[in-house]
Amino acid sequence: MSLTNATPLEVAQAARLGSRKLAVLSTEERNAALTAIYTALADGKDEVLAANAKDLEAANKAAAGGTLSASLVKRLDLGKPGKYEDMLQGILDVRELEDPINRTTAKTLLDDNLTLSRITCPIGVLLIIFEARPEVIANISALAIKSGNAAILKGGRESSSSFAAIASIISKALASTAVPSDCLQLVQTHDVIADLLKQDAYIDLCIPRGGNKLVRYVKDTTTIPVLGHADGICSTYLCADYPVEKATKIIIDAKTSYPAGCNALEQLLVEESALSTTLPSIAEALLQKGVSLRCDPASLSALKARLDPHSAALLQEAGPEDFDTEFLDYILAIKTVATLDEAISHINAHSSHHTDAILTLSESTAKSFLAAIDSSSVYWNTSTRMADGQRYGFGTEVGISTNKIHSRGPVGLEGLTIYKWVIVGDAQVSAEYGAGGKAWKHQVLPVDSSSEQEFVARDEQEREILRRFRAQRAYD
Amino acid sequence: MSLTNATPLEVAQAARLGSRKLAVLSTEERNAALTAIYTALADGKDEVLAANAKDLEAANKAAAGGTLSASLVKRLDLGKPGKYEDMLQGILDVRELEDPINRTTAKTLLDDNLTLSRITCPIGVLLIIFEARPEVIANISALAIKSGNAAILKGGRESSSSFAAIASIISKALASTAVPSDCLQLVQTHDVIADLLKQDAYIDLCIPRGGNKLVRYVKDTTTIPVLGHADGICSTYLCADYPVEKATKIIIDAKTSYPAGCNALEQLLVEESALSTTLPSIAEALLQKGVSLRCDPASLSALKARLDPHSAALLQEAGPEDFDTEFLDYILAIKTVATLDEAISHINAHSSHHTDAILTLSESTAKSFLAAIDSSSVYWNTSTRMADGQRYGFGTEVGISTNKIHSRGPVGLEGLTIYKWVIVGDAQVSAEYGAGGKAWKHQVLPVDSSSEQEFVARDEQEREILRRFRAQRAYD
Repeated sequence: MSLTNATPLEVAQAARLGSRKLAVLSTEERNAALTAIYTALADGKDEVLAANAKDLEAANKAAAGGTLSASLVKRLDLGKPGKYEDMLQGILDVRELEDPINRTTAKTLLDDNLTLSRITCPIGVLLIIFEARPEVIANISALAIKSGNAAILKGGRESSSSFAAIASIISKALASTAVPSDCLQLVQTHDVIADLLKQDAYIDLCIPRGGNKLVRYVKDTTTIPVLGHADGICSTYLCADYPVEKATKIIIDAKTSYPAGCNALEQLLVEESALSTTLPSIAEALLQKGVSLRCDPASLSALKARLDPHSAALLQEAGPEDFDTEFLDYILAIKTVATLDEAISHINAHSSHHTDAILTLSESTAKSFLAAIDSSSVYWNTSTRMADGQRYGFGTEVGISTNKIHSRGPVGLEGLTIYKWVIVGDAQVSAEYGAGGKAWKHQVLPVDSSSEQEFVARDEQEREILRRFRAQRAYD
Repeated sequence: MSLTNATPLEVAQAARLGSRKLAVLSTEERNAALTAIYTALADGKDEVLAANAKDLEAANKAAAGGTLSASLVKRLDLGKPGKYEDMLQGILDVRELEDPINRTTAKTLLDDNLTLSRITCPIGVLLIIFEARPEVIANISALAIKSGNAAILKGGRESSSSFAAIASIISKALASTAVPSDCLQLVQTHDVIADLLKQDAYIDLCIPRGGNKLVRYVKDTTTIPVLGHADGICSTYLCADYPVEKATKIIIDAKTSYPAGCNALEQLLVEESALSTTLPSIAEALLQKGVSLRCDPASLSALKARLDPHSAALLQEAGPEDFDTEFLDYILAIKTVATLDEAISHINAHSSHHTDAILTLSESTAKSFLAAIDSSSVYWNTSTRMADGQRYGFGTEVGISTNKIHSRGPVGLEGLTIYKWVIVGDAQVSAEYGAGGKAWKHQVLPVDSSSEQEFVARDEQEREILRRFRAQRAYD
């Protein structure tokens, strides 16, 4: 890793060359590099925090002058109790994950002594553009090395001293490992993003980690594939049959446990007959938590008639724009729908295809909803806030994707891999097969390289044993 | 399906709405639509061939006038013996493939009564832009319906009558099925491609099926993800240890069995010590097949010294551009390399990351090559012409992708799907878990919805049975 003054083209070329070497390192070599980074950052804590203090001082001045938001200053601070240790632990957590590359995920016998395998491999070179949080550099470096990808990291100017300190420590740490230092390129020059986004010959995937504006700019500017999400407009459809206590618990969590999260609830759709039964109590609970409710006419009049005058006075009228807005705040839009189909149509038209939920006791209603909603995550009877790589069991995430290809929803290490098709043969050629020639066998072979595949029957004998056991069980 | 005068925006919106309905149809409903299309096209053969004859007449005139190539005229002709029947059979073949959607590909127990499933689903709306072949419309329609995707098809002007006839028949056939006719949109207006490529709000994936120029135009013009390949510059690295008969057989197949194919061999890299041993005989065989050999200085002088004067006189000097060219013709560039690393570096820098092969008896050399080459397909001891969906056992393919994300190499039905994350819970919420709260279980559950997963042990009892059997075997 180098804090570089090279041009964007040179940066991208160096990363590409580095990626070739990184891609063929063993699991042990990549894990050893993560250990080295962990140890060096643990040893260098004072140095990093001193640099971070400089960034904080500048940021506090800017915040006092009104040119920087207080929440951004908060995100900059690496000195908060536990934050540095969390960053360090994150590196170890990534090291402990199963190696996502060199896994055989499909295998076919094409003919005798002619096998086709699908083997996972790194994507190549990632471009990660992020805003304030300086700990992201350690997190992303760990994910990139673990998955065998080179990464170009472009950080925000507010955290430049912290970045420089972390980068210098990681760079020294890598020097003693098998991972070439070119695999991690730190770019801090201000005006290079546009030029980096042009390096589609050398960069394979761009991951913008930041606000809506950054993501839209990146998506509109580059021909490099972009992984991420611009908006998180999440909805929940409340059916009249769902118990009020459970509904309240879920909706309060979805709206208030972290309103600034992309998985926070922004729209509540309410089945007509729930307006007078469960909605009033849920609305009361939301108002008590300080949530502003922007209601369509039907829900507004139903609530006004049922809430006490103080609460009723807090209700607001929703405008049409409220159903296309990511509030990221203590605000919830409420809309009445007559049918399941109306709820589905509204969500498919107005949600950002991130995460949407239904609350109902009816299995058939839920199944129709889960099948028809075109979003990366769809839930039955739980909170939209579940959408998170750690909660999904991925260990960590590089972000949440609302893309329709490659990787959708929370993206873990698997989303940073692709595969290659490998054929091993003995001089068989294409012209021998087909009309009048040899026939393809196309026999699916078991793959047993991953732990979840460990208990796949490996041959006909093992299959027979499973068959017999299952037949015996069915008989018992 | 409708031959439409609607605007590109209207076409894209209609396809999007159609895709919502198609996505929730059952396997049987989608398969029934394929049967209906098959029957209608079988019954309408005379009508289609009459329309095709009009296209052919116009094309033959254009060819005589020099404005159209003879090979394009050939690709237009649906009346060639067996071609119409192959088109019909293709629809039945797609119908018989396993349903690629609604498959559970991963399942995790997050907590009691809280499960996360990854379930395959259609991508949404595909835009397929293709050139002459009119049979593609039937093929792509079948693939789209089978995978639950709506498709906008933009055909070439040369086959407009054939397209209109096929479209009208398919449209009538779909009217009696559950598949909404809006799911297939045929666009023939000439100048709409640029506007279609702007509909990224409604179109999820673009697949250009045509020459290099078309693919590059599409990739440079749209922010819609593009699946495909612009070039097919395939290489083979010949090691000195590989027997000459097998090498000749493989290289002749790779270069001459279909030189216009994207998987045809364009560059032969030769280990230095093979210049005087196996290369001369291989070169002789290639020359006899009419292949022009463009040789670097070392291979040129080695061959000149060893071939008979007549053959030697046919050899050509390679220029640097010959190692970045897709010849699509009876031309082969030959380059001498001193080491495996040089071969790998050359291929990673000059191939189009489509398909590259090594010919060697050494397992360690082969493994290094297969690991280090960054291409969608990498082969050991076989011909690059193997890169094909049918040969890989996919039944059919929508194209070959050199993308680094989503789908790589020959793309079958699986490449037209993505997944959604489904959580089914009982009012558990995010704030209950983590620091001080409940712990996630994150227990991997078996998925048994697909045939290849049929012999995965389903529970601890079955795992134990496999363990015991394996231990017994090891003991025997």
